[in-house]
Amino acid sequence: MEVIIRSHFLHSPPLSILSSFSSLQLSAPRCIMMNTQKQGRSKFLEFPFVSAPHKNLLVDLVTTIEDRFQSNLLPCSLPPHVQHYKNKSDTSQISLQITPGNNDSPIDFVMGSWVHAELPTGGLLDITSLSAYLNTSNDAPNFVFDLIRSSPTMLIFFLDLLPRKDLVLCPDYLKTFYDDTKLDTHRQTLENLSEVQPYLSSSLFYRAMASPTAIFVRISTENDGGDRIDEIIRNYLDPITKQVLGIWLDHCACAKRELGEEERASLGKRDCVIRNKTIEYDLGSSFPRMFGPEAAKEILEAIKEYFFMKT
Amino acid sequence: MEVIIRSHFLHSPPLSILSSFSSLQLSAPRCIMMNTQKQGRSKFLEFPFVSAPHKNLLVDLVTTIEDRFQSNLLPCSLPPHVQHYKNKSDTSQISLQITPGNNDSPIDFVMGSWVHAELPTGGLLDITSLSAYLNTSNDAPNFVFDLIRSSPTMLIFFLDLLPRKDLVLCPDYLKTFYDDTKLDTHRQTLENLSEVQPYLSSSLFYRAMASPTAIFVRISTENDGGDRIDEIIRNYLDPITKQVLGIWLDHCACAKRELGEEERASLGKRDCVIRNKTIEYDLGSSFPRMFGPEAAKEILEAIKEYFFMKT
Repeated sequence: MEVIIRSHFLHSPPLSILSSFSSLQLSAPRCIMMNTQKQGRSKFLEFPFVSAPHKNLLVDLVTTIEDRFQSNLLPCSLPPHVQHYKNKSDTSQISLQITPGNNDSPIDFVMGSWVHAELPTGGLLDITSLSAYLNTSNDAPNFVFDLIRSSPTMLIFFLDLLPRKDLVLCPDYLKTFYDDTKLDTHRQTLENLSEVQPYLSSSLFYRAMASPTAIFVRISTENDGGDRIDEIIRNYLDPITKQVLGIWLDHCACAKRELGEEERASLGKRDCVIRNKTIEYDLGSSFPRMFGPEAAKEILEAIKEYFFMKT
Repeated sequence: MEVIIRSHFLHSPPLSILSSFSSLQLSAPRCIMMNTQKQGRSKFLEFPFVSAPHKNLLVDLVTTIEDRFQSNLLPCSLPPHVQHYKNKSDTSQISLQITPGNNDSPIDFVMGSWVHAELPTGGLLDITSLSAYLNTSNDAPNFVFDLIRSSPTMLIFFLDLLPRKDLVLCPDYLKTFYDDTKLDTHRQTLENLSEVQPYLSSSLFYRAMASPTAIFVRISTENDGGDRIDEIIRNYLDPITKQVLGIWLDHCACAKRELGEEERASLGKRDCVIRNKTIEYDLGSSFPRMFGPEAAKEILEAIKEYFFMKT
């Protein structure tokens, strides 16, 4: 499952590439394009396989971001078969939305996805992810969120404001975005629950990439059919995630950062390493596991184009 | 106690400063200087307040490093009152040894210390630390080790090869020193013990500074007078620490790294941030707590000189 968890990092199409997708699709009849956009977005916001508190949290997060940036976000212009893909045997499906920021926005893109898969063991796996990446006009952290339910009584929860600079070399950055915002209090609140255990990624790169206030936990409850997990989502994960998103919106996405040309180049280089390293991990493993090698290849080739055309 | 734990990071006198200390002391009669060196080293190697397995581990680590680098390490030339300090009420004492590398060595310095303090609560606190820092001829990680016993049944254990580069920007560095050396297996071995829990520093900077394979744990056993803790030291901490030190000696300290002038300058800058930030944390808090404000000031002023004269 580790590799599946990483799928939320497939979020890195550069604005230029996304814009070229938009331009290409403008040659299609406008009504078809708009229908595709609406259908993809509606399907995404259904979150049809997760519990009510889980769905409510995701919908609130998406609409909070959209409300804040409104006219600065362009519609998702991914090809329809990438926006929603279901394998032939109907055992796995993915819904994917990428909404790039326009040229006046500090947002590079916002990406949301859900994956539903029947596991070979007979269990069900639901991965819901939302992330928001800034462009190089702003070196503030990116927002990443994953909620993975692998059984009614087991959750993996990952929430972080991913640093975009070397925190050791930049203590002011650490202070501004992590210490002063008291981000660590949210991790502490959650880890006080008896059902919550720290969870370490098996990838050293993912550990190195995370902030020191990252929440990365496994939540495991007694066999009550899922009631306690849903209570934890409603009473803890929901308010904590919304507070962290609030910090990101108020203190990161809207931060006024003065960056010189050299700083922007370094930032772009570091962003690029993370994005490329992410593809390397994901493309080789999680998608084939979820959709089988052939179907995975079809989706992933489309996504790969974003990344490989980038450099 | 958190701030006390950080005291092992007070390890950063540059070679040039240490050499000037040596030069100054050469004007003293040679026999007095040699006696001071011998007395300080003997006192340090006594580890008089810790259990046999704890002392054996420390002595083995120190002699392993000394045996490997022998003629490349200069004698400790700290002033006697910094090599061993005891407060007036005899409730706290520190033994400190810094052995700098000579000009032909990749070692900047090796620092070992033990602190013994009677706590206001009536308990005893014993901190034993050993670290080995490389100079800018070699960008490989530094070795850091702390074993802190705050009661017969409670230990804090910190063991890491501290990265000296931004691991996100340098995936090859991560692969060479952390993945290929299978460093994470030692953390996993230890965390399988029921008495072991992950321990997070309250300082975000310290978390950010650590490697993704850092072992930072709290070990808490039932009230058996300390037998089980000593068993864990002998059967787990001892072999794990020796294996990690072996990795550091074979793969880090002796690594042949080709560094350009610019890389060395960047490395020096990053090393310097860590060292200065460390002083900032430590000087203001742990030493005064352990030795009272006046005595702490006396020791710390001597140590401060190393750091402030450095830049």
